[in-house]
Amino acid sequence: MIPQVIIGKKPLLSYVTACLTSFNRGSDRVVLRARGRRISSCVDVVNTLKRGFVTDIQIESISIGTETIVVDNKPRNISYIEITLRR
Amino acid sequence: MIPQVIIGKKPLLSYVTACLTSFNRGSDRVVLRARGRRISSCVDVVNTLKRGFVTDIQIESISIGTETIVVDNKPRNISYIEITLRR
Repeated sequence: MIPQVIIGKKPLLSYVTACLTSFNRGSDRVVLRARGRRISSCVDVVNTLKRGFVTDIQIESISIGTETIVVDNKPRNISYIEITLRR
Repeated sequence: MIPQVIIGKKPLLSYVTACLTSFNRGSDRVVLRARGRRISSCVDVVNTLKRGFVTDIQIESISIGTETIVVDNKPRNISYIEITLRR
């Protein structure tokens, strides 16, 4: 199974570290996932990883879509992004 | 040349309309581009287009990266996303 890193409200570097940890444990792929406003942070995490830390990381695929979540008993559509990184 | 729609601070539907206008003028491709926090809005625009308006729109490619912009005479790195839509 490919390890997933879900982008939340922690500082950017927490997610960068989470990805690096997965790679260092021997995983050859990591999936980054974010919804709504955190989509921008997800792209920031990938760029930080590629620029500063691990130069041999490649973007394998990027997909976007819509999910329905329930907020206050009402369904709401929210965008998501999923970026698969490969080492 | 492929028409570009740059995501700014206008309401979502302005950009949806801009894409539809380009397609209706006969373009078979439209490039959506956004930087920083607007990356999330860019994904929202694509999802709105795909879900509600034009069902035959497909995502041809998604790319992300970093750009250096100058703010107050200082260079700053900013993430961007570029989504190419095809009809």
